Amino acid sequence: MIGDLKEGGTFLLNAHWTAEQMNEMLPAEMKKALAVKKAKFYAIDAIGIAAKVGMGNRTNTIMQAAFFKLAQVIPYEAADEYMKAAAKKSYAKKGDAVVKKNWDAIDAAIDGLFEIPVPAEWANATSGAVAAEVPATEHFNTVIKPILAHNGDSLPVSAFNPAGIVPVGTTKFEKRGTAVNVPVWIPENCIQCNTCSLVCPHAAIRPILIANETEKPAAFITKDANLTPAEKGKYQFRIQVSPLDCTGCGSCVESCIAKVKALELKPLETQAVEATNWDFAMAQPVVKTGVSTTLVKGSQFLQPLFEFSGACAGCGETPYVKLVTQLFGDRMMIANATGCSSIYGGSAPTCPYTVNAEGHGPAWANSLFEDNAEFGFGMNLAITQRRAKLAEKVKALLAVEWASAEIKEAGQAWLDNMDDGKLSKEYGDKLVAACKDGIDLSGTPYEAEWIKNGKKCTCDACVAAEAVLADADLLTKKSVWIFGGDGWAYDIGYGGVDHVLAQGQDVNVLVLDTEVYSNTGGQSSKSTPTGSVARFAAAGKRTKKKDLGMMAMSYGYVYVASVALGTPANAAQLLKALHEAEAYKGPSLVIAYAPCINHGINMTKSQAEIKKAVEAGYWPLYRYNPALAEEGKNPFTLDSKDPTGSYRDFILGETRYASLQKQFPDVAEGLFAKAEEDAAVRLGNYKKMADK
Amino acid sequence: MIGDLKEGGTFLLNAHWTAEQMNEMLPAEMKKALAVKKAKFYAIDAIGIAAKVGMGNRTNTIMQAAFFKLAQVIPYEAADEYMKAAAKKSYAKKGDAVVKKNWDAIDAAIDGLFEIPVPAEWANATSGAVAAEVPATEHFNTVIKPILAHNGDSLPVSAFNPAGIVPVGTTKFEKRGTAVNVPVWIPENCIQCNTCSLVCPHAAIRPILIANETEKPAAFITKDANLTPAEKGKYQFRIQVSPLDCTGCGSCVESCIAKVKALELKPLETQAVEATNWDFAMAQPVVKTGVSTTLVKGSQFLQPLFEFSGACAGCGETPYVKLVTQLFGDRMMIANATGCSSIYGGSAPTCPYTVNAEGHGPAWANSLFEDNAEFGFGMNLAITQRRAKLAEKVKALLAVEWASAEIKEAGQAWLDNMDDGKLSKEYGDKLVAACKDGIDLSGTPYEAEWIKNGKKCTCDACVAAEAVLADADLLTKKSVWIFGGDGWAYDIGYGGVDHVLAQGQDVNVLVLDTEVYSNTGGQSSKSTPTGSVARFAAAGKRTKKKDLGMMAMSYGYVYVASVALGTPANAAQLLKALHEAEAYKGPSLVIAYAPCINHGINMTKSQAEIKKAVEAGYWPLYRYNPALAEEGKNPFTLDSKDPTGSYRDFILGETRYASLQKQFPDVAEGLFAKAEEDAAVRLGNYKKMADK
Repeated sequence: MIGDLKEGGTFLLNAHWTAEQMNEMLPAEMKKALAVKKAKFYAIDAIGIAAKVGMGNRTNTIMQAAFFKLAQVIPYEAADEYMKAAAKKSYAKKGDAVVKKNWDAIDAAIDGLFEIPVPAEWANATSGAVAAEVPATEHFNTVIKPILAHNGDSLPVSAFNPAGIVPVGTTKFEKRGTAVNVPVWIPENCIQCNTCSLVCPHAAIRPILIANETEKPAAFITKDANLTPAEKGKYQFRIQVSPLDCTGCGSCVESCIAKVKALELKPLETQAVEATNWDFAMAQPVVKTGVSTTLVKGSQFLQPLFEFSGACAGCGETPYVKLVTQLFGDRMMIANATGCSSIYGGSAPTCPYTVNAEGHGPAWANSLFEDNAEFGFGMNLAITQRRAKLAEKVKALLAVEWASAEIKEAGQAWLDNMDDGKLSKEYGDKLVAACKDGIDLSGTPYEAEWIKNGKKCTCDACVAAEAVLADADLLTKKSVWIFGGDGWAYDIGYGGVDHVLAQGQDVNVLVLDTEVYSNTGGQSSKSTPTGSVARFAAAGKRTKKKDLGMMAMSYGYVYVASVALGTPANAAQLLKALHEAEAYKGPSLVIAYAPCINHGINMTKSQAEIKKAVEAGYWPLYRYNPALAEEGKNPFTLDSKDPTGSYRDFILGETRYASLQKQFPDVAEGLFAKAEEDAAVRLGNYKKMADK
Repeated sequence: MIGDLKEGGTFLLNAHWTAEQMNEMLPAEMKKALAVKKAKFYAIDAIGIAAKVGMGNRTNTIMQAAFFKLAQVIPYEAADEYMKAAAKKSYAKKGDAVVKKNWDAIDAAIDGLFEIPVPAEWANATSGAVAAEVPATEHFNTVIKPILAHNGDSLPVSAFNPAGIVPVGTTKFEKRGTAVNVPVWIPENCIQCNTCSLVCPHAAIRPILIANETEKPAAFITKDANLTPAEKGKYQFRIQVSPLDCTGCGSCVESCIAKVKALELKPLETQAVEATNWDFAMAQPVVKTGVSTTLVKGSQFLQPLFEFSGACAGCGETPYVKLVTQLFGDRMMIANATGCSSIYGGSAPTCPYTVNAEGHGPAWANSLFEDNAEFGFGMNLAITQRRAKLAEKVKALLAVEWASAEIKEAGQAWLDNMDDGKLSKEYGDKLVAACKDGIDLSGTPYEAEWIKNGKKCTCDACVAAEAVLADADLLTKKSVWIFGGDGWAYDIGYGGVDHVLAQGQDVNVLVLDTEVYSNTGGQSSKSTPTGSVARFAAAGKRTKKKDLGMMAMSYGYVYVASVALGTPANAAQLLKALHEAEAYKGPSLVIAYAPCINHGINMTKSQAEIKKAVEAGYWPLYRYNPALAEEGKNPFTLDSKDPTGSYRDFILGETRYASLQKQFPDVAEGLFAKAEEDAAVRLGNYKKMADK
C-alpha cells in the first residue's frame, strides 16, 4: 500500500483507530516505511462519518473531500464548491435529503481529518499487526497468493493448467476480514430455525452440529440440538460465524425471527475467538440429520458448496446460488452466463465453489452472454450420451453368467434408478463396491484373478467390471444447472434459453432476477418493470416487465417457478420449487427475485425488501409443474397470497422508482399507476390459471 | 443449351412435341447445330408420362431413366435394377404406392423415349421458334440479360451500383413461360369474387377494370363490372392471365368458388393471345374503386407490388407477401430474414418487388438469419427520427407569419395526422402542392420571388418551405414490415423478434410459417408440430409446436394474429388482421400458415390444404388487439370455429406425417394422439382467453 509513496509524501488511512492505537494496529513494515520516507501521515474514520451523516457505508464522497483537502491540487475552497455543485447535480433527482447528506459528508470529512505524528523510532519498528496466516494448499500459496499480491506476472506459464482448469474451494484461504462489524450469536435467544444461515450471501454463518460427546474448546458454546425425535439428545447445536469471511452486511441479524434477536453486530476486532471457533467447526464432520431438506432448517445443515464469494455485502443473488449447491452441489454441473454471477462465481484467482469431504462439488464454467443456455445444454448432452454408454456397459456386465450376485443386484437396481439423483448414487456406490469386491469367477476371488502374474484377468466379467469402474464418476445422476441474470435470460441469451427449454431435456435454469443489468452498470433489461429508472431508461422504463415465466409455461412441458426469499414462508416455497425443478425429468426454469445495490436500497435490509415485494404483489410466487398435468391435475399453483401491502409504498421505498417521482413527477404518476394496474392484471391472469 | 454438345453426341429434349412439330418448335440456331454436329436427337414427354403414372409434375426419375438408356454408362438392365432398388430404399417409408409409381415411371420412360431424325436441311435452317422479345428497360437489357444468359462475368464493375442498390420491377421482363398449362377465364361463369387473384402465388392472374368507354382489342372480352352502387355501369371487368408469367400451379382453378368453375387449364401454346391481352391490360390505368380493401374483392383491385417471383409453383407463402404489398406496398419498407422469402424476394439479377404508376413501391433489403428483426427495427428507428425532424421543419414553416393559408392548413392537418398512413399522404401531397404553389409573400407570387436573378428567395417562409420539400419523401407515414419464415422467427432470429416486439415501436412482423426450415432443406424448427417428420426429426418431432403467438401476447401491448388463406372466410379474417396490425401504433406479429413442398402435398391443392388445416383445428385463427384492451374490451378474438374436420385425417393427408405412420407405426400412433390432444388443449386455452 505504501510502496509507491515518495519521500515526504502524504499518506491517508481510512481507519477508526486513534493516533495512539496506530502503533499496535499497523504492520512493522508500514511503520518503518512511513518513518524512513518522512511521510505526512493522516487518518480519517470515513466509515464512522458516513454512518453519522446517514450515508450508510458510502465513503466515496468523504474520501474525496479528504483527498482534495490534503492534495491541494486546487485551493480547497474551490474544491469544496465544485464537489458540492457536483453532488447537487448528481443527486438532485434523488431528493434534497440526499444532496444534504453529501454536503454534510464533505464538511464532516474535513472536520474528521487528523494528522498522526510519525515517531522517529518507527524507522526501526519490529512489532505491530501481523497478517493472518491461513494454512492453505500449495496451489494457493504458490499461485494464488502472488496474484492477490499483484505479482501474477512473476508466475511461469507452467504454474497454470493448460486446459484452463482451476482448483476449487480457494476463497476460504483469503480470510479478507472486510467487515467492520460482524454478527455474534446469543445462544439463549436462538430458536434454531437456521434462517440466518439461509440468507447469508457469503456462507459466513452456519448452523453446526456436533455429537454430544465431542471434545470442544471452552469458547465453543453450544446448546442441545432440536432435531427429529429420533435424534433427541444426540447432538449439540451452535451458530458459527466466520468473522474473517463475513462482509458485515447484517442480513442475518435483520432476518433473525427469534422473539429476542439471537444475533447482534459487534466490531470485528472483538471476535478473534470466533475465527478459532470457526476453524474448529470446519474440522468437524458434517452431521446428516433426519430433518427434511425441504425445510429451511434441514436445508441449512447441508454443506454450502459455494462460499465467501466476492459478491457485494448483502447481495440478493448469492443466497439462491448457495442454497442450490447445498441441495444438489455434490453432483452438479453449472454453466454460468456472463454477469454478476460469473464474476463472483469465477473471480480469479480464487474460486468460491468448493467440495465436500468426499471431494464432490459443482463443476463450474462460464460461457458468453449469448450462448450460456446452449453451453449448459451441451454439458447435459455429453453427460446423457456418456451415461447411456455406461448403462450399456453395466448391462454387458450383468449379462455375464458368473458375475457375482452382489453385482447383479446392485447393477440392476442402478439401471432401474439411474436417473434418480439419490438412488443412482446409492446403487452406484454399491455397484462399485461389488465390482471391487470381486466377481464370482467359479469361486475364484476377483482380486486374486484380476492380477495374476502381473496381468489382469481377461474373463468377460472382469473385463466388463473394469469397464464399469473406469466410468464410475458417471454413476451418480448429474444435476445440470444453467445460471444467469435477467440481462442474460430476458435479453441477450433469451433466444438460447427459449431454444434450450423447448428441447425437453433435463436441464435446470436459474435466473437471478435483479430486474436490471447489474454487473455491467445498471442498464435496463426486458425484466425492468414499468416506471423503474435504469440506464437507457433514465426517464423511467415505458414498457412493462416481460413475463418470462408465462412464455416458458406456454410450452406446457417446462417446469417453471417464480420464487423469492424474504420470509421463512417464501423460503419454504422456494425449497419446494428447487426440489421439484431438479426432480422433473425435463427442462426447468426458476426465476428468483434478487435485490441489488442498483435498486437504491439499504442492502442490510435486502431480505425485508423481498418480503415487501411479495406482500405488495410486486413479485408473485408460483409453480407450474408439468408432472401434475400428466396426473390430470392443474399444473399451475399460485403460492403467494393476495397482496397485503401497498404496491406504491413498496416501489417508493426504492431509489430506482422514487427518483423518477422526484425528477419527473407527472410521468411517474402515470407510469406507477400503469405498473400497479399491470401487476393487478397479471395477478388476475395467474388466478385464472390457478382456477382461483 | 446445345453449346457443349460434341460431334456425333446425343441430345435429349423433354418436350411433348412430335417429330414433325420439331421443325416449327425449335429455334433455327438449334436445328442448325443439331445438323452440323450430326447429333443423335431424342425426345421424351416426361411431363406427360409423370402425370400418367401419377407422379404429378415430378420428372426426375423419368429423365434419369432416359439418361441411363441413352448414355449406356452401364448396361441398361443393371441401371434399371439399381434405379428400382434405390427408389424402393428412398420411398419405402412413404408407402408401396409411391414405390410402384417410381417403378412405373422408369418403365414408362423407356417406352416413351423416341428418336427424331435430324433432316440434313436443318444445317441451313433460317426459320423456327423465335424467343419472345419483351420491351424492357436499359438496365434489364444491358445488365440483367447477360447475367440470365450466364454471361455475367463479361459485365464491367461500372454496370453495378456501388451502394448495392438494384432497380426493382424487373421480373416482369423475364417472361419465363415455364407453365405447361395455364388458366383460361370463362367469363360467363365468373362471379367476380377475385379469389383466383388472391391465391395466385405469382400475381399472374388479376382482375382488370377499365372504363366502359375504353377502346380495347376484340379478344379482350369483358363483362359489366359489379362494384359499388355508385360505380354501377361505369366499368368493365375481366380476369386477365399472364400466360408467360404463370407457373401453371392451378391454384386459381382449384380455388375458384363459382358454381361452375370460371377457370380451366389449357396448354400454354394455345394462349398466345392472352400474352397480348396482358400487355394491353397492364397499359391501362389502375382503377380505384369504392369496394372496400378489407374485402377480398376490393383488395384484389389494388396493384400487387410483388410479382412473378421465383417461388415454387403453388407456393403457400407468396400470396401473403403479395397481399401485404397490395394493401401497403406504396409506402412500405421491408426487412427480410434469410430463407425462402429472401431468395424469391431478391433472386438476383431480377427483383419481384415493383412500383406503381407513381413510382412508389416497397423498399426491400435482406439481412442475416439472426438479426432481421433488429434490422427492420433500425429502419423504423431511422424513419421515426427523420420524420420527427421533418415535423420540426413543418412547424417552423407554419410559424412564419406570411406563409400562405393553404400551407398553414395543409401543414397543420399533416402534423395532426402524420402517423396515419392514408391521411399523412393526403395532407402531405397538399402541403407539397401548397409549398410549390407559392407562399403569400406580401402578395408576391412564390415562384417569381424564389428565382429572382437566378437566386432563390431567402425569406423565412421560402427557406422553410424548401426545407420541407427536401424531405417530401418522408411526408407519407411508412409502413415498416419485417418478413421471415419460422426458422427465423421461432428459432434463429427469435431472440431478436422477441426483443423488437418488446420495444413497443410501430413495426409489423409477418411470419410465413411453413412449420419447417424450407429453403435450407426441410429441417425441423420449433414451429414443427409433434409427430411431423423433418430433417433432425426423422423419427417424428417429439416436442410440440412452440406457441409463438401466445408468447408475444404475454406482453399485452403486441398486436398478434394467427391467419390463413384457404377460403374466402379465412381471407376476410386475414384482411382484418393485416389492416389492424398495420394500423396499430405499436408492434404487430402476424403468423400466416403456409403450405410448402416440404409437407409432401400436391401443391395445386395447397389452398384446399389450408382450408382443411383450419377446419381440423390444426391451425387456429385469432386476433389479439391491444387497442381493444385500452377500450376495456377483451383484446382476444378467436376467429376460427370449433373443428368440423378430423385432425387425424388432415395430418395423414400430408407425407410429412403419413411417412411416420408408415415407418414407425407405434411411435406415430402415440405422437399423433399427443398432437391431437395438444391441439385440443390449445383450443381450450384460446377459448378461455376469448371468454367463450
